[in-house]
Amino acid sequence: MVPLSGGKKVKAGIIGGAGYTGGELLRILINHPDVEIVFIHSNSNAGNYIHQVHTDLFGETELKFTDEMVFNIDVLFLCVGHGDARKFLAANPFPANVKVIDLSTDFRHTENAVIDYEGTEHTSRTFVYGLPELNREQIKEAENIANPGCFATCIQLGLLPLAAKGKLNAEVHITATTGSTGAGQSLAQTSHFTWRNDNLSVYKAFDHQHLKEIGQSLTQLQSGFDQDINFIPYRGDFTRGIIASIYLDSDLTAEEAVSLYTDYYAAHPFTHVTTRNIDLKQIVNTNKCFIQVQKKGEKLFIISIMDNLLKGASGQAVQNMNLLFGLEETAGLKLKAVAF
Amino acid sequence: MVPLSGGKKVKAGIIGGAGYTGGELLRILINHPDVEIVFIHSNSNAGNYIHQVHTDLFGETELKFTDEMVFNIDVLFLCVGHGDARKFLAANPFPANVKVIDLSTDFRHTENAVIDYEGTEHTSRTFVYGLPELNREQIKEAENIANPGCFATCIQLGLLPLAAKGKLNAEVHITATTGSTGAGQSLAQTSHFTWRNDNLSVYKAFDHQHLKEIGQSLTQLQSGFDQDINFIPYRGDFTRGIIASIYLDSDLTAEEAVSLYTDYYAAHPFTHVTTRNIDLKQIVNTNKCFIQVQKKGEKLFIISIMDNLLKGASGQAVQNMNLLFGLEETAGLKLKAVAF
Amino acid sequence: MVPLSGGKKVKAGIIGGAGYTGGELLRILINHPDVEIVFIHSNSNAGNYIHQVHTDLFGETELKFTDEMVFNIDVLFLCVGHGDARKFLAANPFPANVKVIDLSTDFRHTENAVIDYEGTEHTSRTFVYGLPELNREQIKEAENIANPGCFATCIQLGLLPLAAKGKLNAEVHITATTGSTGAGQSLAQTSHFTWRNDNLSVYKAFDHQHLKEIGQSLTQLQSGFDQDINFIPYRGDFTRGIIASIYLDSDLTAEEAVSLYTDYYAAHPFTHVTTRNIDLKQIVNTNKCFIQVQKKGEKLFIISIMDNLLKGASGQAVQNMNLLFGLEETAGLKLKAVAF
Amino acid sequence: MVPLSGGKKVKAGIIGGAGYTGGELLRILINHPDVEIVFIHSNSNAGNYIHQVHTDLFGETELKFTDEMVFNIDVLFLCVGHGDARKFLAANPFPANVKVIDLSTDFRHTENAVIDYEGTEHTSRTFVYGLPELNREQIKEAENIANPGCFATCIQLGLLPLAAKGKLNAEVHITATTGSTGAGQSLAQTSHFTWRNDNLSVYKAFDHQHLKEIGQSLTQLQSGFDQDINFIPYRGDFTRGIIASIYLDSDLTAEEAVSLYTDYYAAHPFTHVTTRNIDLKQIVNTNKCFIQVQKKGEKLFIISIMDNLLKGASGQAVQNMNLLFGLEETAGLKLKAVAF
Repeated sequence: MVPLSGGKKVKAGIIGGAGYTGGELLRILINHPDVEIVFIHSNSNAGNYIHQVHTDLFGETELKFTDEMVFNIDVLFLCVGHGDARKFLAANPFPANVKVIDLSTDFRHTENAVIDYEGTEHTSRTFVYGLPELNREQIKEAENIANPGCFATCIQLGLLPLAAKGKLNAEVHITATTGSTGAGQSLAQTSHFTWRNDNLSVYKAFDHQHLKEIGQSLTQLQSGFDQDINFIPYRGDFTRGIIASIYLDSDLTAEEAVSLYTDYYAAHPFTHVTTRNIDLKQIVNTNKCFIQVQKKGEKLFIISIMDNLLKGASGQAVQNMNLLFGLEETAGLKLKAVAF
Repeated sequence: MVPLSGGKKVKAGIIGGAGYTGGELLRILINHPDVEIVFIHSNSNAGNYIHQVHTDLFGETELKFTDEMVFNIDVLFLCVGHGDARKFLAANPFPANVKVIDLSTDFRHTENAVIDYEGTEHTSRTFVYGLPELNREQIKEAENIANPGCFATCIQLGLLPLAAKGKLNAEVHITATTGSTGAGQSLAQTSHFTWRNDNLSVYKAFDHQHLKEIGQSLTQLQSGFDQDINFIPYRGDFTRGIIASIYLDSDLTAEEAVSLYTDYYAAHPFTHVTTRNIDLKQIVNTNKCFIQVQKKGEKLFIISIMDNLLKGASGQAVQNMNLLFGLEETAGLKLKAVAF
Repeated sequence: MVPLSGGKKVKAGIIGGAGYTGGELLRILINHPDVEIVFIHSNSNAGNYIHQVHTDLFGETELKFTDEMVFNIDVLFLCVGHGDARKFLAANPFPANVKVIDLSTDFRHTENAVIDYEGTEHTSRTFVYGLPELNREQIKEAENIANPGCFATCIQLGLLPLAAKGKLNAEVHITATTGSTGAGQSLAQTSHFTWRNDNLSVYKAFDHQHLKEIGQSLTQLQSGFDQDINFIPYRGDFTRGIIASIYLDSDLTAEEAVSLYTDYYAAHPFTHVTTRNIDLKQIVNTNKCFIQVQKKGEKLFIISIMDNLLKGASGQAVQNMNLLFGLEETAGLKLKAVAF
Repeated sequence: MVPLSGGKKVKAGIIGGAGYTGGELLRILINHPDVEIVFIHSNSNAGNYIHQVHTDLFGETELKFTDEMVFNIDVLFLCVGHGDARKFLAANPFPANVKVIDLSTDFRHTENAVIDYEGTEHTSRTFVYGLPELNREQIKEAENIANPGCFATCIQLGLLPLAAKGKLNAEVHITATTGSTGAGQSLAQTSHFTWRNDNLSVYKAFDHQHLKEIGQSLTQLQSGFDQDINFIPYRGDFTRGIIASIYLDSDLTAEEAVSLYTDYYAAHPFTHVTTRNIDLKQIVNTNKCFIQVQKKGEKLFIISIMDNLLKGASGQAVQNMNLLFGLEETAGLKLKAVAF
C-alpha cells in the first residue's frame, strides 16, 4: 500500500486503450476522484481522440490516444491480448516503482507470476492474483496485480466461502453464460448479430481455460482440494454480464450455508449474499456481484451474477488499484446500474 | 391407426384456439394437405376471425372462432391450460370414435392416463404418452394421446437412447433454457419486455414438474432406473426454442455413444444426431430436434435443441395425429426454419 | 409462360448458394412440390454438404455444393453480389432457353436491363423487373427476371396503388427499418452483436440506392411523376423484416384510400391491406406483405411490412419462378410465420 | 436559486418511488454528493426495503419505502402518473419553501402551470418548464419545475437552435423510436416480451401528446411559429433510449447549421453536437444528448439521441434540482455509459 500524500492523484497510464476493457477502464477513470490519466497508448489509434473510438465519451473528455509512453507514473494498466502483456513488459521494462495491473491471463497462474529481467539492470516483477475477496491483504502490499478472468471471478465468488471452511468435498457442477463482450471486439461468426441474436450455444465445455485459476484459488483456501469441476460455458444473446449456476453435494444446512457466505463477504463492499431470486440484469454496469444461496435436497445450489467487463475485468482492476494505493475500495466504482 | 379412405381428410376440432399452442396448431393445420379444420373453439373470442388473434394469419384464412362444438369429427385437439383438459372432457364426453390429443399435463403420468365416465353411458378414455421416438407403435394404435411437455421432450430425446440400452447408470446433470413462449401469453413480471430483455434467470431448480414424465419414460426403457436427475431450468431472453446440456458419467466411448444415438433415431424423421457444434436457432420454427453427442473425459456430454412450441407442443401434436391416422409422419411438418 | 407438361418439375440451378439469399432459396425449393434442384454452385464451399453451411437443413437434404455447372436446366437463380451477376453471365452464357432470375441490382434499372453478347453466338438477355404486383403479366411472358431490392419492394407495395391512379402528387416521406440480414453475412462493425444489440442507427439517409428502382416503377404507373421521395433508412436490432412508414399530402378520404389499395391488391395472393394496427413480426418468415392504410388530417399514412429475405428477396424470386413456369403463384410459398 | 450553506445537503423527498422514474431517481440520488434522501413514499410498498423493488440497489442502501411524509425538506420529487401529480399536491400542500419537481405532464403546458390553493391558507405554486437548454436562467430562479416529457426533450433538443434563430420556416418531419421503459412497468400486450422482442410498431402517429409541449417551446423561441410538425412515434425492441430523425427544408448551409447548433449548446454540459454518425447506444445510461447535424440537398437533417429515463426523465429532474439549488449542473450526473 502506497498512501498518497494529501490531494495527490494516482498517475495512470493505459496500454491497449482501444479495446473493450480499455474503454471500460477509461469510462471509470475519467470520473475517478483520485486518478489522473497521464496517457492512453494505442498503436492503431495514435493521434485520435478517445471519443472517436469510445464514442459514448464524446463531450466528456478531449484526451487522445498516443503511441508514446510516459514512464513517470504510479500505475500502468495493461489491456492487451493474452500473451501480449508479457511481451509488452519484456520489451518495455517500466521503472520498478510503477505498479502494473495486467488484465490478461499472462501472470495469473502461480508458475507464471513473475517476469524476470535477468541479464539486464531491471528488477523482476512478481504478480499477486488480484481477487480482493480472496487476497485483499496481499493486494494492498503487492507490487503488481494479475487481474482475474471474468468467468473465473464469477465462479470463484460462488465457491470461495466453501473452500475457506474446507467444505468443497464433492464434485462441482457449473453452467455459466456470458455476454458477447466477453469475446472482445474482433469480428467472428459467433459475434455476428444475425447469428447471435436469440441464440444460445455451448463452447469449450469441460475445457475452459479459466478452470486453472479457479482450481488454484480453491486450493489456496482448501489445501488438498481435488474435486472435479465440471464447467459448461454458454454464449448468451446479450452483451454484458455472466450468470453462473453452481451445485454440489453438501452437508451444510441452508442456514449454515447462508451464514457462511454472508460472514465471508461481510467486509467486502461489492459482493452481496441473498436468499432472494436473482437475475442477470441486476448487476449489469456495476462492479457488484450477487450470490444467491439455497439448499435443494442434498445439493447446495448457488447462483452468482456479475458484469464481465466490470467486476470481471476493468472494474476489478480499479478496485485493485484502489487497494494498492490506500484509496477507498469503492472509489470511482459507485456506478449506476443500467437496471433495465 | 385409422387409415382414411382415399382422399378423405381428417376432420379436426380445436379447443382453446386463442393461445400460443392453439395458434401454432392452426398455423400448421391450415397448410396440412390431409386435414380439414371443422371448428376452433374459444370462449373469449367466439365470433372473431382467427386472424384477429393470430394476426400473422391475415390473408390466409377466413375461419372464425366459435363457442359451439361439432361432434362429428375425427380428432379433437385440447390446447387448454393444465387442469382444464380433464375438466373439459369430463363436461364434454365426445363420441368414443373421436380421438383426443391433449397438449396439457393432465394425462401424461401413467396413474392419471385414464378419464373414467363411470355411472354414465360414455366409454372411458385411455391416453398414450405421445412421444413418437419412445412410443411410435403404441401411438399408431392409440385412442388418445397425452402430448409431452416441452422441456420433457427436449431432455428425453437427449437421454432415451441411453435408457434403451440400460446405460443410464449415473447421476444426470441437466441445464436447459427456454424461450418466453414457454410461459404462455399471460402477463407477468417475468414476461415483461423491460425485465426479460438481455436477462437470464433460474426458476424451479431441481423441482421442475416435467421431471416426473422424464423419469417415467426413462424407467419404461430401463427398468429399475433410479438415478438422480438434477435439472436447472433457465428463462431465456428469446421467444422460441429450448437448449439443454446434459452430462453423466459413462463407460461408453465417443464412437459407441454416437452410434447408439444414431441407430436409435435412424428411423425417426425429425430427430437428428451430430458430432458438430449446434446452436439453438438451427431448429427454431421447425419440428426438428438436433442432438450433439460428445465424450469429455469420463463424461458423456449431450446437447439437445428443439422449438418448444413445435416439437415441444403443437408440432409434435400434429406428428402424433399423422401417426394416429396413418398419414405420412412428416405431413404438414416440413416447415421452413427461420434460420436467422 | 412455359407450362410444364404434366408432372414435370422445373429443373433449377443456383449460383451463390452459400449466402443468405441462396440459403433462403434452398429452404424454399427443397420443399417446393414442382422443383428439382439440379445443382448449387459455390466456389468457396464446393464439395461440402449444404447443411454444413445452412446448418438448419441438417436432416432434410444430402445435397452438396459444387463448383461445376449443369446447363441443361430450366431456370438459373443468381444469388451473387451486386456487380457479380452481370460478370457471371458474361463469362457463362447459359443456353437461351434457360431463364435467369437475378437477385442482385445489376439488371433492375431499365437502362441496364439487357446483357448483350454481341460478337458471339449467344443471344442477348433482357430482364423484366420482377415485382408481381406491378408486372405480373410481363413476368409470365418474360425470359429473365431482375428481382427487386428489399427496401424497394416494401416501399413500392406501399405506393403502387396511388401511382396507378395518378395520386402521387405531393412530396413523399418514408422512414424504414431493416433487419440485420439485409446487410448479408459479411462481418462488419455494424453487424457485430455487441454493437447492434439494442441499437438503432440511420444510414444512407436521402441517398439509398433503392430510390432509383422505386422512382422507375412509380413513373411506369404515373407518367410524369416527379415528386421528391425522402427516405430515411434505419438499421434495426433484429434479424428479419422491414417496416416502412410512409406519408404524403393527399385529397383521398380514408375510405377512398382503403378501397383503392384493397382493389389494387385484390388479385395478389401475398399482399394484404388492412385498417388494423400492424407490427413487424406478423410477416416474418413468410412471403407476405401487410399494408395498413390510414388518413391523418391531410396526410395519407401507410405502413408496409414484409420479410426482407422472402418477399424482399428469395421468396419473391420463387414467386417469379412460379409465374414464369405457369405454376400456382403460391406454390412452395405457404410458409409458416414465426409469429413470435 | 437557493445556495446551500457550506456542506449542507439538499433534503429530498420522493413520491412514487416504486416506479421506473422513481427508481432511476434513487439510483442517481444515493450517489449524489449534495443530497440527503429524507423519505421515499410508496403506498403499495410501505415498509419494504427499496432494494426489494429496485433489486439492483441491494447492497447499496438500507432505505425503506414509507407511507408517511416529512414536510421539513428542501425538494419534493413527484414520480407519479399523469393526472396524479396535481391531485397529490391538491391533497398535500407542502410548505411553500419546499420546491417541487414534477415528472408528470400535469404542469408542463403554460395554461396548466399553476396549482391554486384558493380558499386555503396555502400559497399557489407556479411551475417553470424544466428544460435547461431552453430555460436555464428561469429554472435557477424557479419555485417549482415541470420536468419535460421524454420524446419532447429529444425532439426539442433537435430543434431549439433553429427556433432561437427564427429558422423553423417549413413543415417538420420527425420519426422517433423509444425503448420499452417509456411505457412504464404496467403489463400490457405491447410490453410482453414475446410480442415485443424483434418487433417494431407505430403508435399515436401524428397525435402524440408531447407535440403540445414541443410546440409551446418552439413558439417561445420563435414567436409566430406555425409550421406543421409531423411526428411518427415507434415502439422499439430495446429497453432504454430514444432516437429521433428530423428534417425540414432549410436555407442554412451545412456549415451554418453546425455552427448554429454548436453555439447554442456550447454552455450546456449534457448536449453535444457532432457531424459524425451517431447511434442510439452511445448515450444509454447517461444524462447526455447527442445531436448529429447534416445537410442533404435542401433538407436540414438532424438526429437526436438520449436516454428516455435519464435526460428524458429522472436525470433531467436532478439536473433541474442542481440548478435550483446552485449546485454544479452535472453533480451526481457523471454517469458511466453502458456503451455496449
